[in-house]
Amino acid sequence: MKARVHVMLKNGVLDPQGEAVRHALGNLGFDGVEGVRQGKVIELDLADGTSEATITDMCEKLLANTVIESYRVEVL
Amino acid sequence: MKARVHVMLKNGVLDPQGEAVRHALGNLGFDGVEGVRQGKVIELDLADGTSEATITDMCEKLLANTVIESYRVEVL
Repeated sequence: MKARVHVMLKNGVLDPQGEAVRHALGNLGFDGVEGVRQGKVIELDLADGTSEATITDMCEKLLANTVIESYRVEVL
Repeated sequence: MKARVHVMLKNGVLDPQGEAVRHALGNLGFDGVEGVRQGKVIELDLADGTSEATITDMCEKLLANTVIESYRVEVL
């Protein structure tokens, strides 16, 4: 089975990487880019029958820093 | 309007970051993790009416390295 985990910085946490992308898009002539946030997506190839609780556990223990990041699990 | 761009390494391109995550999950006692690929997700806050073609252009010019990465645009 496959699962996808999206990890984003929480709202209010400064995202310098996203800001850099926003500036770069402006410099390239793309107008109207009001904000950019950059996060991670992790695609997991798991043994069949792995529960969503286990995936959540992986997020809490390793994949996301829950102090500053939020995550979303999507089982494919 | 908002758009989300997913950028992943193409199949066959070595993903050391994903491999590191796979090992770390194994070390934490999570069995059955067969593969991990890590990519980026970029959330764009754009002026209303920005066309999908413009977003694709952003991907080609800045957001993805199309030699080794594939991207997917999702307008929200």
